[in-house]
Amino acid sequence: MRIAIDAMGGDHAPEAVVTGTLQAAREFADVELILVGDEPRIAQFITAGGGKLPGNVRIQHASEVIEADDEPVRAVRRKKDASMVVAGRMVKEKQADALVSAGNTGALMATGLLIIGRLPGIHRPALAPMIPTLEGSGTLALDLGANMDASPEHLAQYAVMGTIYRSKVHQLDQPRVGLLNVGTEAMKGNELTKAAYSQLEQLPIHFIGNVEARDILSGVCDVVVCDGFAGNIMLKSFEGAQKAIFTLLKQTLTSSALTKIAGLILKPKLRVFKQYDYREHGGAPLLGIDGIVIKSHGSSDAGAIKNAIGQARTALMNHLVDAIREEIKRNEGQL
Amino acid sequence: MRIAIDAMGGDHAPEAVVTGTLQAAREFADVELILVGDEPRIAQFITAGGGKLPGNVRIQHASEVIEADDEPVRAVRRKKDASMVVAGRMVKEKQADALVSAGNTGALMATGLLIIGRLPGIHRPALAPMIPTLEGSGTLALDLGANMDASPEHLAQYAVMGTIYRSKVHQLDQPRVGLLNVGTEAMKGNELTKAAYSQLEQLPIHFIGNVEARDILSGVCDVVVCDGFAGNIMLKSFEGAQKAIFTLLKQTLTSSALTKIAGLILKPKLRVFKQYDYREHGGAPLLGIDGIVIKSHGSSDAGAIKNAIGQARTALMNHLVDAIREEIKRNEGQL
Repeated sequence: MRIAIDAMGGDHAPEAVVTGTLQAAREFADVELILVGDEPRIAQFITAGGGKLPGNVRIQHASEVIEADDEPVRAVRRKKDASMVVAGRMVKEKQADALVSAGNTGALMATGLLIIGRLPGIHRPALAPMIPTLEGSGTLALDLGANMDASPEHLAQYAVMGTIYRSKVHQLDQPRVGLLNVGTEAMKGNELTKAAYSQLEQLPIHFIGNVEARDILSGVCDVVVCDGFAGNIMLKSFEGAQKAIFTLLKQTLTSSALTKIAGLILKPKLRVFKQYDYREHGGAPLLGIDGIVIKSHGSSDAGAIKNAIGQARTALMNHLVDAIREEIKRNEGQL
Repeated sequence: MRIAIDAMGGDHAPEAVVTGTLQAAREFADVELILVGDEPRIAQFITAGGGKLPGNVRIQHASEVIEADDEPVRAVRRKKDASMVVAGRMVKEKQADALVSAGNTGALMATGLLIIGRLPGIHRPALAPMIPTLEGSGTLALDLGANMDASPEHLAQYAVMGTIYRSKVHQLDQPRVGLLNVGTEAMKGNELTKAAYSQLEQLPIHFIGNVEARDILSGVCDVVVCDGFAGNIMLKSFEGAQKAIFTLLKQTLTSSALTKIAGLILKPKLRVFKQYDYREHGGAPLLGIDGIVIKSHGSSDAGAIKNAIGQARTALMNHLVDAIREEIKRNEGQL
């Protein structure tokens, strides 16, 4: 299992990426890790880490970097020697099996689509982050921004890919798939969800029907499918509500001497809320690509990078890409 | 100003509706209030309220009731003597200027559309609740569920109607209008929002561009326009996040003797969070109808009913319907 890591992607690159990769190399002896990026800068953090390169890590030099504010498709097309693009090309040319990056999300999706390429029969790849839930093991949400508009067929493919990901990577038996909608009744929704509902009913998945945005955080399903626009609105709304409530809570906890005491008592306990931060829930796979692609959050620290590498390893060990390829083929007529 | 009130609509009808109407009658001597519904049941709560009918309140008998789980359009068509339908007919026939109801939302929208009717030139009426914000005076969001799918022209009309509502009813000077989107840059979004963006730019409104769901609760704009599907996802996501965080907070506050003390200190302060509950922010106007229609929340108590009546009165005093009629006509070519 060879995993190419975009050493230059993310707010804390290359230091956090290099450090996380070295941690992963120690923890996962069965993988070969390839740090792709500016060799002198990468080497500097390996030296700072106190030593020489572990046997299962090597550096692949790449001279360019895709920046966070680069226009994705243009950057991928023009910066042919960018660390992300070089890493993608290694997957395309079977020199690596997976790509992990904390860089520009749009550019990583473009790298997946234009450099590595879709699996046969896949209309659109989908970005699929985990949304943490109060109970249970979180919900895989797709698509969360790879494609703003979707057709019923796209949502059907998302449902199949999400089912396989949760089965293969999280070992869930018959993951419950919900369709993000404005009500739970079958005929609720807009033209897209009404048409998608009947398609999802036909598929060999555990479709539980429509689910409402307000029930997602309670863990009403294991996979939620939606178009990228609606998914983004949901995720950003969760984020906005969390921010607003914490602002109010902070105001409350600092409003008097007495509430400040309460604040001191609660401070260590309030860390539990962090589990609610979707940013901490590992990387988001880009599904439907002919290779494993994991998007780690832009603000990833070394631990997040190590986890994303572990996630890519689990996907590889469980033959995720082949499983998606076969399932899409098997259901060709309905997708 | 004559306001017809659906006495039978809402979870606490008719008691809460009758009590709220009597409160409104005392507070607003300049309005004539018509309680529409089952006369004996209404009379019972007036007697219980200790007295005879105030001079500015009268009862209009209606023998039927639209239930919360009735199929909206069918109920409005078949139950011709339902309190909501009779009240709507009074507005249509100019026996009343406004309709207030806490009943079935879908049926109220159908009453607006089928019984009272649209203003000339309006493609689709829009349901427009206020979303409370951390700073400032809240955001009027439309459409929040009257129409699941929307065209760019619909969003443009929503923007004009929302601007007039905030100007006339809330006396805001040049309300800031935002387009709900997945990013703030002009070319972000799905096909709908991309097309709507350029239409909104042409209108004589204060269009501030795209706004993200995560910034709505910070009060980034005074009016946010979106299709009913996206709006519903946003609102339900806010609700779900709030519920999830309160669940975690409650768990935290009851986890030990010490945190229980903190909980006791904070309990009175935590009421501030209620201001964040969108349900408490008054009724939602149904805009684009040839008459004032206010949807009060299904769980409205007497105070909420009184506020919704006050809201209808403010809209009437400021000639909201005529203002929308004229502005739509003035911008005919662009809408």
